Formats: sequence, C-alpha cells, structure tokens
Amino acid sequence: MEVTRTNFKDSLSTVYSAIEEADFLAIDGEFSGISDGPNVSALTNGLDTPEERYMKLKKHSMDFLLFQFGLCTFTYDQAESKYVIKTFNFYIFPKPFNRTSPDTKFICQSSSIDFLASQGFDFNKVFRHGIPYLNQEEEVQLREQYEERRSQSNGSGNPSYISPNSNKGPGSIPEEHREYIRRVVEKVESLFTTSEKTVDLEEMCIYTTLLFQRVYLCDDIMGFQKERYIQISKVDDEERKRRERQKQEREQEELNDAVGFSRVIHAISKSGKLVVGHNMLLDVMHTIHQFYCVLPEYLLYCFLRLLDTKLMATTQPFKELINITSLAELQKQLKESPFKSPKVEGFPSYDTAQEQLHEAGYDAFITGLCFISMANYLGTFLTPPRAHIPSQSKLIQPFVNKLFLMRIIDIPYLNISGPDLQPKRDHVLYVTFPKEWKTSDLYQLFSAFGNIQVSWIDDTSAFVSLSQTDQVQIAMNTSRYAESYRIQTYAEYIQGRQQVRESQGHSTQSWDEDGWVKPQVDVLNVTAGPCVVGVRPSLGKRCVSPIQEEQPTEGEAQRSHADGWSGYTHSHTHSDTGSKKIRTDGKGTHTLRHGQQEDQDRR
Amino acid sequence: MEVTRTNFKDSLSTVYSAIEEADFLAIDGEFSGISDGPNVSALTNGLDTPEERYMKLKKHSMDFLLFQFGLCTFTYDQAESKYVIKTFNFYIFPKPFNRTSPDTKFICQSSSIDFLASQGFDFNKVFRHGIPYLNQEEEVQLREQYEERRSQSNGSGNPSYISPNSNKGPGSIPEEHREYIRRVVEKVESLFTTSEKTVDLEEMCIYTTLLFQRVYLCDDIMGFQKERYIQISKVDDEERKRRERQKQEREQEELNDAVGFSRVIHAISKSGKLVVGHNMLLDVMHTIHQFYCVLPEYLLYCFLRLLDTKLMATTQPFKELINITSLAELQKQLKESPFKSPKVEGFPSYDTAQEQLHEAGYDAFITGLCFISMANYLGTFLTPPRAHIPSQSKLIQPFVNKLFLMRIIDIPYLNISGPDLQPKRDHVLYVTFPKEWKTSDLYQLFSAFGNIQVSWIDDTSAFVSLSQTDQVQIAMNTSRYAESYRIQTYAEYIQGRQQVRESQGHSTQSWDEDGWVKPQVDVLNVTAGPCVVGVRPSLGKRCVSPIQEEQPTEGEAQRSHADGWSGYTHSHTHSDTGSKKIRTDGKGTHTLRHGQQEDQDRR
Repeated sequence: MEVTRTNFKDSLSTVYSAIEEADFLAIDGEFSGISDGPNVSALTNGLDTPEERYMKLKKHSMDFLLFQFGLCTFTYDQAESKYVIKTFNFYIFPKPFNRTSPDTKFICQSSSIDFLASQGFDFNKVFRHGIPYLNQEEEVQLREQYEERRSQSNGSGNPSYISPNSNKGPGSIPEEHREYIRRVVEKVESLFTTSEKTVDLEEMCIYTTLLFQRVYLCDDIMGFQKERYIQISKVDDEERKRRERQKQEREQEELNDAVGFSRVIHAISKSGKLVVGHNMLLDVMHTIHQFYCVLPEYLLYCFLRLLDTKLMATTQPFKELINITSLAELQKQLKESPFKSPKVEGFPSYDTAQEQLHEAGYDAFITGLCFISMANYLGTFLTPPRAHIPSQSKLIQPFVNKLFLMRIIDIPYLNISGPDLQPKRDHVLYVTFPKEWKTSDLYQLFSAFGNIQVSWIDDTSAFVSLSQTDQVQIAMNTSRYAESYRIQTYAEYIQGRQQVRESQGHSTQSWDEDGWVKPQVDVLNVTAGPCVVGVRPSLGKRCVSPIQEEQPTEGEAQRSHADGWSGYTHSHTHSDTGSKKIRTDGKGTHTLRHGQQEDQDRR
Repeated sequence: MEVTRTNFKDSLSTVYSAIEEADFLAIDGEFSGISDGPNVSALTNGLDTPEERYMKLKKHSMDFLLFQFGLCTFTYDQAESKYVIKTFNFYIFPKPFNRTSPDTKFICQSSSIDFLASQGFDFNKVFRHGIPYLNQEEEVQLREQYEERRSQSNGSGNPSYISPNSNKGPGSIPEEHREYIRRVVEKVESLFTTSEKTVDLEEMCIYTTLLFQRVYLCDDIMGFQKERYIQISKVDDEERKRRERQKQEREQEELNDAVGFSRVIHAISKSGKLVVGHNMLLDVMHTIHQFYCVLPEYLLYCFLRLLDTKLMATTQPFKELINITSLAELQKQLKESPFKSPKVEGFPSYDTAQEQLHEAGYDAFITGLCFISMANYLGTFLTPPRAHIPSQSKLIQPFVNKLFLMRIIDIPYLNISGPDLQPKRDHVLYVTFPKEWKTSDLYQLFSAFGNIQVSWIDDTSAFVSLSQTDQVQIAMNTSRYAESYRIQTYAEYIQGRQQVRESQGHSTQSWDEDGWVKPQVDVLNVTAGPCVVGVRPSLGKRCVSPIQEEQPTEGEAQRSHADGWSGYTHSHTHSDTGSKKIRTDGKGTHTLRHGQQEDQDRR
C-alpha cells in the first residue's frame, strides 16, 4: 500500500492496527545519499571499532534524507500455518507545513540519486506528496509555540492597543501613516458604541496588528500581497470560549499533521515488537535522527527491538550455507533447500519472481521473508524439530539488537544491548609515514613478513596486519631507527587515543583475561537528551559469537557454532588493499566508487 | 524544446545554430535551493556592499544545484519587424558518467523543492534524464586521464608482464593464487607459439591485469561480479594502430558526452552575444560555478555580456512607470501603454496568457520579451522615434554588465565592468551590543533621533541609519560613556575592516570629492585561476546612475534621468526592520521565511 501526504491521515488507523496485531515488523529505508565523507575507504576502515564507525556515519551520513520508508507487518495465522502480511510504502518529505516550521536542508549524492532513478524511483511522488515529520524537539517547540500564542490571546481579555498618539510602544509610527491608523482605530472603537458585531479592515497594514496585539508583526499580516483582510469581532464570553475551543482543536490537528510520519515510528516503538531489517544500521540511525532526536554519542539501547538479517545470514549456522548476503541473493538462496519459503498472504501481493528491489516496501517485505526462513531453519535443530519459530523464541534472542557492520575485518556487529566486541588485534601495527607513500611502499617495507593487509586510515597513516603475531616484535625492532616512518603496536595506538579521551574526561578500559577488552559501563556513557536512546547496564563478559555463549538451551541448536566469527575476515580484504595506490597515482578512484556501489546495493 | 540526456546530442546542432544566428539570448535557471545561510536576513543585510553580498552568495548558495537551464534565442527579422525565437529547456544533472568521474553532492532546501513541486516541476525528468556536465578543471583532468592511459598503453609495445615467480612488482602474489596465475600466463604465452590470434580468459582476476599491464587494477576488472572476461589478442602493428585510433575516437566522444551541457555554455560565451536575465546574479554565479570554474574572489568581467531586466525595470526611465518588478508582474505591465509587446514567432509557441512561470525555458522567453519592450521604449525618446532598438544599441549600453542586488538600500547593482558604487553612508552608525538586545532596544536607544532604520548584521551588531546626518555626531557623543553598547560611524567601521584587509595584503580606498569611494583597481583584484572570469582595467570615475553618465548621445534619451537612484531605498525597509524582534522573542521566524519566499519567487 502506497502512503503519501494525500492518504496518510486516512491510512493511519490501518497502519496502527497492522502494527498492533503483528508478530513482528520488517522495515527498510531509501536515502538521498550514503556518504558525505571524503571517500568510502576513509569512512570504512577495516579496523574501525564499532564506536568509530558509528561516529563516522553520524558525522558523514545524517545530512542525507530518508525519503522512502517501507514497513511490512507479519502476523502468524496458527490455524493456516501462514503469515498474513501488510506492506506500507511511505513517501517522506519535510514539507514546511507553515511559515514558522523548520526549512530542512538535505544533501543528495549524485550516484545514489542516479541509482534510484535507474530503479524507477518516483522522485515526484516524494517531493510533491511526501509525508512531513518532526522530531521530538521540534514537536515540543511547536507545541510551546501554540501554547504561548494561546496564553497571549487569553491574557489580553480586552483588545489592548496603543493609542496612535502615544510616544511609547515597540516602534514609532511614521508621520505619514498616523492619519490612516487614526481612522482604523476609530472604526474599531465604533464596535463599542454601535450594535455592529464585526468590522472588516480591508487594507492590510502592519500597524493594525501592531495596535491590537501589542506585537510588531503577527502571522496574519504575512500574506499581505494577496488579498486578505482582518476581521475584528465583538464577542461575549461564551462565544469567545467556543471560538477558542475551535481554534484549539484546529491547532491540535495542525500539530498532528506536522508530526506526520513520526507518529508511525512512535507507534512502532510503543508496540515493542521485533523490528527486522537487512543491513539496518543506517536505517536505524536515520530513523532516530529524522523522526526522534539528535543521535546520541553512541547507540546503546535503542527504542526499537532490532534484528538484522544480514548479521543473521553471516553468522553460524547460516554462514556456511549462504554465499552472498545481499538482500536479493539471500532471498534467492533461502528459497532453496535446506531452507523453506514461508507461506504468506496479504497486501500487496508482491510477485517475488518479478523483483521490485529498492522499493522500500518491497525490500521490507522480502527482509521479513528471509527472517522467517532463517528462524524456521533454526527450528529444525530442535528435538522434535519445529516448523514454525515465532519471533519471541529464545532461538532468535542471540541475534537481537546486533547490527551488521560492513567491511570491518574482525568485528561483525555493533551491539546495542551491551558492550561491543573488542578483539585484541595484537598482529596489527599502526604505521605513520609521508603522504607520498602508496600501498606498494608498505608492501615493500614489510616484505620480510609475508602477507600483510593494509587498512588505510588517512594519507599518512594505516593499519598493517601481519599474518604472524610473533613477527610484530621483529617489525617493531627493525623500525627503531627509521626516520621517514613510525610504527606502533595496536595496543600502543589505542593507549595513545585513550590518553586523549581521558584528558577529555572519559574513563579507561582494561584487558579481559580471555583476550577481549572489557569496557566499563561509563565508557559507553551516552548523552541522550530527551529521547529514550540511551545507556543500559553492562551485560558483563563478552563472547565471540552471539550464539556461542547466548545460545539457546533447546537441544541441537548448539552444534556447529564452535568457530564463531573466525574466517570472517576473508571477504573484506580485496577492496582495502590497493585503494591508496589507485587514489594517488592518477588511475582514478574506481575502487572507492566500487565500495560506494556496494553501499548503494548494500542489501 | 525540452532537452534531456536522451536528445541532447541530436539537439546540439540546433542549439548551436540558434545561438549563432541570434541577436541576443535570454537565460534562466531553476535551483534546488536558494540559501544555506543561517537565515535570509543575515544573508542579505540592507547595507551590504556588493562584494560582501557576492561573498555571502558564494559561500551560502553554491552547494545547491542548478538543475534546469532555460535558453531563449531572439533573432530580429527586419523585413517582418518581428523576432524569431527558439526556446530550449535543458534538464541538468551531474550523473556520474563513469566510475572515475566525480560523485557530486548537492543540497536541497525543502521550501525551494516544495515550491517547485507546487509548480509542477518534473524532478523525475531531472534525475532520470538530466544532461551531465563538467567544469573546465574536471574536463582537463579527464582529458589528462585519457592521455595518461593512452601513453601508458603506447609505451609498452609488447605485452609486458611480470613473471609470477618474480619477487618484484607492485605487490606480492599470495601463495594460493600462484598456480592459477601460472596457468593464465601459460595460456597467454601460447599466443606466441601457436597460430591462434586471441585467447579468452574466462575468469576475472585482479592478477591477470596486474600481470599484463604493469598496473595493479585496471578498468576492465571492475565488473567482476557480472559475467565478463578479458580477451588478449595477438596483433600486428597496423591492426594495433587501427584499434588505437578507434579507441581514441571513442574516448573523444566519451569526453564530449561528459562535458555535456557545459558545451552549450561554452557556445554562449564564444558567441559574445548579449545575455539577458531577470534578477540574474544567482543564475550567473551558478552558471560559472557549475559549468566553468570555481567562482573568483569577486565577479569582475564575466565571460558573458549580461543585461539584467530587473535592474533595467528599477532604473530611470522605467522606474516611474513600473510598480512591481517580479518577472510575471513586469511582463504584464509591459503589455500596457506606454510599452508595446513585441511581435514574436517561433518554438515553442508559449501562450503568455496561460502562465508557465518557473519553467526555466518559459521564464527565459518572457525575460527576453520584457527586454525588447523596454529597449523599444527607449527608442521613443529618439528624434525621430525608432520602433526597434537592437541589442547592440548605445541606448542599451548603460544597463550592460550591472546585476540587480536584492534588498540593498542604496546600491542597486553589482558592477561587473568596473568598480562598484560606494555611497558614503555618513548617516549610518555601526552599533554593537549584548546579544539579548532586540530591535525595540535599538529604537529606545535612538528614540531621541526620530525615525531610524535597523539592519541587523548578527546577534550582537547592526547598522542603524539615522534620518538626519547631522545627528550622527550627537549620537556618538551620547554614547561615549556607555558600557553595554558601542557606536562607530560607518566610516570608522569601514576603516576598521580595511585595516584587517590591509593586514591581509589588500590596498586601500579613498573618498572621492563627489561623495563616493573611489576604489583602486587592485582592490578589486581577482584570483581567477584558469578561467576567463577575471579583472578588467578600471573604467575610471564612477557615476550614480548608469544612465546619468554613460548616457547615449542619441537625442531625447537624456531627459528625465536626473534623479538617478535616489528614492531607491524605499521598498527595502520593511522586511529588515523588526526581523530580529521576531527571531528572538519566540514569535517564530516568519519574516525571515517571508524573505525566503521572495527569494523563491525572486523573478
């Protein structure tokens, strides 16, 4: 179902009840761009920490617009063993709803716009009929504005005005206008002495409102090039109250219209339902940023309960069975054995054979399908096997609130429910060098140490991962007298950064005995402002695989999870290696753009 | 005629010959936004100098996209006493034309987008079918890229490669790939010993191109998830040359496609024809910025010969006859006596009764009509009167290269052909004060001095214009012991700023005996880079009205120009006064938004 400004109000009850009755929800967003950073490789270093990655996205991706929001609700029909789905494809646009509302600016990235255009995306529908929205702060501001205006008009029971002959007041009246003003005042004052109930002032003039409202300018005078007039009425107390009530109701409706699409997000949040997305970090960040509040320092405890199907697909037991985890490919593979396509029914009846990828509603729909197939597959490990695994099952729990991180070598997800994984990285060196250096110079420098992997940080620094940890000390020794470059261990590098952080008032972290840094809760502290995205107590000791430790107690589900995230590195090495070379030697930037394309097609 | 990427190449010769045969051209642009500044009043202070205004627009308006460019060519048919017109409405979009081209980001302003949407603007056409473009620097870079690639492939007459067993090369080959590489090399080397002419390598691998091109990555391997392959051919010298020629031609065509719409701008520039626009400063700046080069420090001598119909309409003798100078209103008034609508014919046959305002082609068309009506009106002052005044007439000259400035109280235009007007402003005070102050505080402070006019600069400073110059000294005296605020004369303020400028290496200005600052030529110096927008020798002494001094010698045209720009101040005062009051006291920002709307509707 397509929802625009035109049918939003009428559709809202359908949307609300679909959310209310659903077992789980699937979402997807389309944006006007992905990255405003200098380039993708700078934005996605393979050795970013989750926090660093989050901060980069917060800084470089939030000025784009989420302009299409897909929501698909899934309700299980036990009797028929099928899911009933309802799909909504919302077009979103921050149309200024009146003269005082914020005039949002957003960035468009040509490659993203071009990509969506090639998929038949309807920009006219977004810009002409997109549903407006406000975040919580803007909503509060608007509410205050209404209340202030109301209390002002209540405060002055009688029309209070300043005599045009008075010297006081918020501005002196030019000589040439005094006669006009005198006539207006005379006309209005006639209300007190005659039986007339209203008087129309045909000409608009900023002084009329100046006189009768004690403010210099007020709303009513704004359209003064168009033909408008001010009506001044003589009313008794009852009539005044009736009118005030009317006005209040009208204002409440205006306010609701202005909050617009954010009401859908509030409903999702309030429902507490599991929200499924595919590679959903950016979707979640944009949703919070646009419809909720300024993003917190770090994303711990979101107001949505989340599950990322891309993370699920790249985790045991699915990892071994699924080669490519882009949404389209994942859906194809989950149609084949050992997986089963779920039985679904509802609106609209998308034809999954005829792909409508990158329409947010459709993407949300097939994301939900993928989740169901994978969840049900977990049921086959139970004794006896179960064909239907509900979204509340403990089998699902290990995947909840962990958002897939793209192109990070050894940390698969950002953990919203607790401290992040922090691998030791003791085979990693932090190298600084002159800005002329290319990847080949680093290969040369470390040629004695076998295969290395380079993760560029900026023009003058990079992480170099050695294949053998025991060679780190040798590399450090050989660099001792080097002048043009400098090598630190990853631990030294982190320590240096932490000293900077501490000097800024953050607390420290300590190494855990099992090789993972155990963060203190207050390291993860969050300045969340008025919204509920905030800090949650630490869950204690971390584990490598979400399943390995937080595994379900149900029978067979435990097997084959032993290798956790190892081998995860593999698919990430190509694009990082060599990117600097290409960037600096005039051969173009296609590796970077290739990464960009991956982002584009990131489902 | 609508021109998109689809028909651009086929239309180009029509466009070129229309420009070539025209007497003059009219242009108009539509943008994705107007102002990225904090608010309009900060962006358009009523006492900005033209240079300050230009710098503000350069800083706050160039990240928007000019995405529709209207061109209307006007050719006079002497025999039939009519103009033959050709109108082109170009849709423009920086579609990345290949993987190495820039991925442009641009800002959209909701109010502007919403405004265009309400006018039926077709965003889908822009984003799906917009014509790409490159500025000169990007064109040069692309050309160099092509040449570098060509010289590289020429340099290696024989396929040069590195043995997979070699230790050298731009990167070591991992052990696990060596066997694969060995087989590939064997296959290619078979070309030398067999009669086969080509060998197809079915699998894509970054090492293949590494081996045969001495580069780490090359274009061909990019699509390696799609089914592509590399063909290696054994060719003789003649065949190689033929292929190289073919490739060169193909590259030249790619280059032309990439330069795209900029070729139209080059043709306009080369033609030397008069280019007419309405309130065209932003159009000109965007045109230079997008299709030519980084905007220079200041706009002196543009590569286009320009005439602004809004400036013309607000100048004598038109000023007295024309009330409202928005494009739509101007056109209406120029249909009535004493003006005459010109006879026109051509494509498309716009119906001027049924307005298609804010379609760039249509706006360009009626801008041209307005110019003709006004130009011909000047002919009625000649003895004998002339019905047709050509665009080369001396009568037009006073208006050439002077671009209308919005909302500046006492400087009507930015002068591209020479130094700007610099009124003395000796009734103006520069006041600094605590940020809590509102307009009413300033009115209070200066209540003894009669009417004042406040032009806010920022939260803690404003210009206050007194109505009587002789009260300036009194105001200065009374402020001597003030602690919360500080008053400077405008001259002192300018001097202070000039000291800052001088310390940055600029030279000084001096007062002319007739009350205008006479700038030195090198004050206006420009760092123009590689483009032809640059400095031009000073034209000597400045005049108040463009007509007053640079008047035509033709008979009657001299009369009634005596009052120059006086009285010009009038229409600009309202929106500045009071804007701060509204901004700071929680009454909303509608005055600012009102200004914004004016910008939107700025024709």
